[in-house]
Amino acid sequence: MPSIQALLFDVFGTVVDWRSGIARAGEEFGRENHLAGIDWLAFADQWRALYQPTLEKVRTGQMPFRPLDDLHRMELDALLASHRISSVREESIDRLNRGWHRLPAWPDAVPALARMKKKYILGTLSNGNIAQMVALARHSGLPWDAILGAEMAQQYKPRPEVYKKSIELLRLRPEECCMVAAHNYDLQSARECGMKCAFVTRPEEYGPAGQRIAEPDLTPSHPWDFVAGDFAQLASQLGC
Amino acid sequence: MPSIQALLFDVFGTVVDWRSGIARAGEEFGRENHLAGIDWLAFADQWRALYQPTLEKVRTGQMPFRPLDDLHRMELDALLASHRISSVREESIDRLNRGWHRLPAWPDAVPALARMKKKYILGTLSNGNIAQMVALARHSGLPWDAILGAEMAQQYKPRPEVYKKSIELLRLRPEECCMVAAHNYDLQSARECGMKCAFVTRPEEYGPAGQRIAEPDLTPSHPWDFVAGDFAQLASQLGC
Repeated sequence: MPSIQALLFDVFGTVVDWRSGIARAGEEFGRENHLAGIDWLAFADQWRALYQPTLEKVRTGQMPFRPLDDLHRMELDALLASHRISSVREESIDRLNRGWHRLPAWPDAVPALARMKKKYILGTLSNGNIAQMVALARHSGLPWDAILGAEMAQQYKPRPEVYKKSIELLRLRPEECCMVAAHNYDLQSARECGMKCAFVTRPEEYGPAGQRIAEPDLTPSHPWDFVAGDFAQLASQLGC
Repeated sequence: MPSIQALLFDVFGTVVDWRSGIARAGEEFGRENHLAGIDWLAFADQWRALYQPTLEKVRTGQMPFRPLDDLHRMELDALLASHRISSVREESIDRLNRGWHRLPAWPDAVPALARMKKKYILGTLSNGNIAQMVALARHSGLPWDAILGAEMAQQYKPRPEVYKKSIELLRLRPEECCMVAAHNYDLQSARECGMKCAFVTRPEEYGPAGQRIAEPDLTPSHPWDFVAGDFAQLASQLGC
């Protein structure tokens, strides 16, 4: 049985906390534009709720592939209109859209990634585009060896092309790559492509119970190769 | 005038010393296979001499794009045949081909890249494929933010598509990207694509005078934006 050579990570939700990051970017945007009475955590949730429906248009061929930065911007324009926010300078909207470039890493991520990097190739296998992934890595010190994923495949997860293209670019066999994600649906698709799978729970991804746009996956839907409560646990399980 | 956001590096010759790295991989191969009387530095030169003619077949459309690892292997098979080396195990040939994955960095490269990384996005813009670039980075501790270049564009430098695709993936304007290379022809093409250009001399790339397959570029062919004797000088010129 070939051993794992590379760990490939889902990023939004698994490595970084998009909800509090976007809420903070929203607060800055609100102050800058003198907007009162907006719940920016709810705004972050509303924005994220548009994510899968937008990607689905690309996955089903209703819309050509465009990098996630561009899809976020389409969604943001619609969201600002629905909040009746207008007459805001382009620069300010662009900065809010780039809130997705400066999301905080979950506190356990960076030290555990440093441990894992000694033994494994570390890559992103995210729906985010390269510029987003580079910015996030520089913002939080995420030590990726390679940025892979949707933009390389010109398609969005969980479509199998995205996993297959990333594996191909590393010139590895699927079973030499382990997908790491907090979302069962992502791992299911990785498994169908022949990858090993590591499930890491992120119970805070969607905020506190009762206000959530989605429920976090707290239990594995399949007997994944690794199941961990955080990246430190995963690193230990992987012998790092 | 927009400021530089990203430094994009040629790798073979500019960041790493392919000649002594391949000669060392050859020596290991020779010992493993009990081959005597081969000058492995000359072997490295012979291998590298096949590089531009092979790439030219792709650039002119005589051959479809294939990652550099595969082209190296085609060249190596021909070179071994010309040396009448046969009956060598596949594993051993593959390990020699992966000599291009473990080339030493020039001694000034890593500390200067660490300085430059604080201020700029650092990427590769090489003809090497992603798996090669990842392996080289891990071998020598090259702190890239992104691996870009030929494989993304499915074409080889100095074809303009390679530079343009890399810039596009970073979502930057050409003038926000500075190409760093020891070869004037590479910078000429980068300049034609609108990039800033930094020329760093590598007088030892092809070994000592009198035995060289090519002469190193020691003087700038154009008034490049930056001209430096090594990466430490370049870092200082860039305000790092």
